[in-house]
Amino acid sequence: MVVELISVGTEILLGNIVNTNAAYLAEQCALLGCSLYRQSVVGDNEERMEEMIRQAMERSDIVILTGGLGPTKDDLTKEVAAKVFGRTLLMDEHTKIRIQECFAKFGTKQITENNWKQAMVPEGAIVIDNENGTAPGIIIEDKGSGKTAILMPGPPNEMKPMFEKDIAPYLNALQPEGIYSRMVKICGIGESLAETMVEDLMEGQTNPTLAPYAKTGEVHFRITAKAKNEEEAEKMMKPMLTEMQKRFGNAIYTLEENVTLEEVVVSLLKERNFTLTTAESCTAGKLAGRIMNVSGASEVYEEGYITYANEAKEKLLGVSHETLLTHGAVSEETAREMVLGAAKTAKANAALSVTGIAGPGGGTKEKPVGLVYIGCFVEGRVTIRKCTFSGNREKNRDSAVVQALILLREELLKNNVHK
Amino acid sequence: MVVELISVGTEILLGNIVNTNAAYLAEQCALLGCSLYRQSVVGDNEERMEEMIRQAMERSDIVILTGGLGPTKDDLTKEVAAKVFGRTLLMDEHTKIRIQECFAKFGTKQITENNWKQAMVPEGAIVIDNENGTAPGIIIEDKGSGKTAILMPGPPNEMKPMFEKDIAPYLNALQPEGIYSRMVKICGIGESLAETMVEDLMEGQTNPTLAPYAKTGEVHFRITAKAKNEEEAEKMMKPMLTEMQKRFGNAIYTLEENVTLEEVVVSLLKERNFTLTTAESCTAGKLAGRIMNVSGASEVYEEGYITYANEAKEKLLGVSHETLLTHGAVSEETAREMVLGAAKTAKANAALSVTGIAGPGGGTKEKPVGLVYIGCFVEGRVTIRKCTFSGNREKNRDSAVVQALILLREELLKNNVHK
Repeated sequence: MVVELISVGTEILLGNIVNTNAAYLAEQCALLGCSLYRQSVVGDNEERMEEMIRQAMERSDIVILTGGLGPTKDDLTKEVAAKVFGRTLLMDEHTKIRIQECFAKFGTKQITENNWKQAMVPEGAIVIDNENGTAPGIIIEDKGSGKTAILMPGPPNEMKPMFEKDIAPYLNALQPEGIYSRMVKICGIGESLAETMVEDLMEGQTNPTLAPYAKTGEVHFRITAKAKNEEEAEKMMKPMLTEMQKRFGNAIYTLEENVTLEEVVVSLLKERNFTLTTAESCTAGKLAGRIMNVSGASEVYEEGYITYANEAKEKLLGVSHETLLTHGAVSEETAREMVLGAAKTAKANAALSVTGIAGPGGGTKEKPVGLVYIGCFVEGRVTIRKCTFSGNREKNRDSAVVQALILLREELLKNNVHK
Repeated sequence: MVVELISVGTEILLGNIVNTNAAYLAEQCALLGCSLYRQSVVGDNEERMEEMIRQAMERSDIVILTGGLGPTKDDLTKEVAAKVFGRTLLMDEHTKIRIQECFAKFGTKQITENNWKQAMVPEGAIVIDNENGTAPGIIIEDKGSGKTAILMPGPPNEMKPMFEKDIAPYLNALQPEGIYSRMVKICGIGESLAETMVEDLMEGQTNPTLAPYAKTGEVHFRITAKAKNEEEAEKMMKPMLTEMQKRFGNAIYTLEENVTLEEVVVSLLKERNFTLTTAESCTAGKLAGRIMNVSGASEVYEEGYITYANEAKEKLLGVSHETLLTHGAVSEETAREMVLGAAKTAKANAALSVTGIAGPGGGTKEKPVGLVYIGCFVEGRVTIRKCTFSGNREKNRDSAVVQALILLREELLKNNVHK
């Protein structure tokens, strides 16, 4: 089944916004086993949009259009698609009521006339409710040619839930076999080493397949199987999953699609009834800020320290003046005293410290830009890790945050759960 | 002059990476006064790429291709473009030497045979040196038809400097008039109000033009003029710039393209010889982390506090137990005591505090999710601002960070510079 993506909108065409919708849809369609050969972007122009839809319909079974479903005169996607399929637009009463309810929810009293344009639907089309906005999704099927157009709103917070809830099942039902996948998220092993460790699995297999996706400090592997049903797919993926677990062991931090590294760290802390504190120099709050992305992290995190200046390291964390003089702020010794001081002051079971040279200035031959020491304290046991990053200021700080989370996870795993 | 963009690469086509190159090039080309009607993405497939290039050449004067210039067999962009223009590929000795030097710089001793593929160039093409990688940029001009293809490498850190240094001047020289622009960055005024305030300027003008770009908590306006030279353009843009300054006044925080809000805040602090500290509850380090994005911020920032728990607010900042009991952690009173306590403990001239309910949990009818109090201390003067955000946890925390920076900027502007 060949799918083609068309993103509609002058803002994307002129680069005012980045086309994240296309990346999301391409990845999702590929996961569903659809073949993708082209993506296009066109502005809110009737003639060019019509030409583009017609060409796409010739080449592909399904054309997915996003954007241009708003209430203004500029928004033309539905009108042009209806024209290409030879359909007239009719008022959809169900959508009209849904739009009224939508406005009532937001406390809008006066609904301007142009909003009813969004309740107009091509004759015979399937209408998909938008749970996060007014414009409905629309599926137009042409039984004669077997071609289908799927129209979705442009805002990602409307499009993504709609795709997940209604469009993905629609596409999956069209396939002779379903596509099922499992995620394996790995940390603490570099991208190229991780890929080398499973090269044979990646190259030797066609069903299931194995594909890597690199993130800062992490590698995510996706196992994908084509099968008649989920049970059969699970059976097909099982041996590869077992093999991955054998090879990567504890480096696998989750098998869940939507679980993040910081969520896993917070869970490990909760399981152990531990509290965590942080003492940050070069990352200056970024580490704590990331941990606190986790809703409910307040259960394990009470306070933290940003100690940029040497005086602050002494005052807030009790780092000794002599250590700073002898070894410098960026040193194993300072990282150790920072993490010990933080744990003591916060009375926490676990603590992380980060001290380093993020750049662009401040580097020397002995201590170059990118040098970072991370300290980890877990119930009295201190571990220091030296890292050397080679990015710019922002990238070095992000890398330090991830490595701190990875180190804490490793150290927490050494402690048994004893509630 | 009509320009069309084609992004080549299976990773973009299948959504493994987001196409930021297209957004960058579209914006840059629009700034240069080129007309853009289409963008496309195609994989590393000879037949489909050839068809796409041929169709684009029919519609447009210039086709810009990015990606597919690497050393592997998959990389086909140069080969296909040469075929479309009827050129043979020849070894370019200058590029061969540059590639050798490039490898020497990275300490690579053995250059594999396939790397010389990158030194092959279509006969008669203009070769553009790549200062950040091996693959050169290539311009193929067809004098007969007046059509041109521009090929650039896919990695953004290679493509962007190449575009800025060589391709933008090349495109500008083709235009009868040059395009010049000025940036006006505004904070503290919402997007729709800001647009309403200059609606007449946006609608009434064709040269110069005025266009808004919204960011979290900020609005950026770009004034663009077509003129024979920069001096003339400046003269044309001057009245609009003056009018913008009259209408927005202090809400304009910079006229510089690359200056950020946090950089302006750090500069204001430096001018006044002030130090800053932060006391964060719901943002938990994100505010400090953003201020420290600024290289050299260490001159104004020495220490900060993350006080998530009530006990931490009492212990580290001296917030009174009674205030927390009577008014709650998310209140004007707590924000005030937090910022006063932080300024005192850090002995800082300026301080910011943030306390709020980021969500998704923790909201009540009186204190809903999104309610945030921001405290600002500048030389003994305290200002509290109440905000109500309507995003998810992440968005609410980001909005709080921006509003804190905006409040601090406003309060700093009330203090004269007295070094």
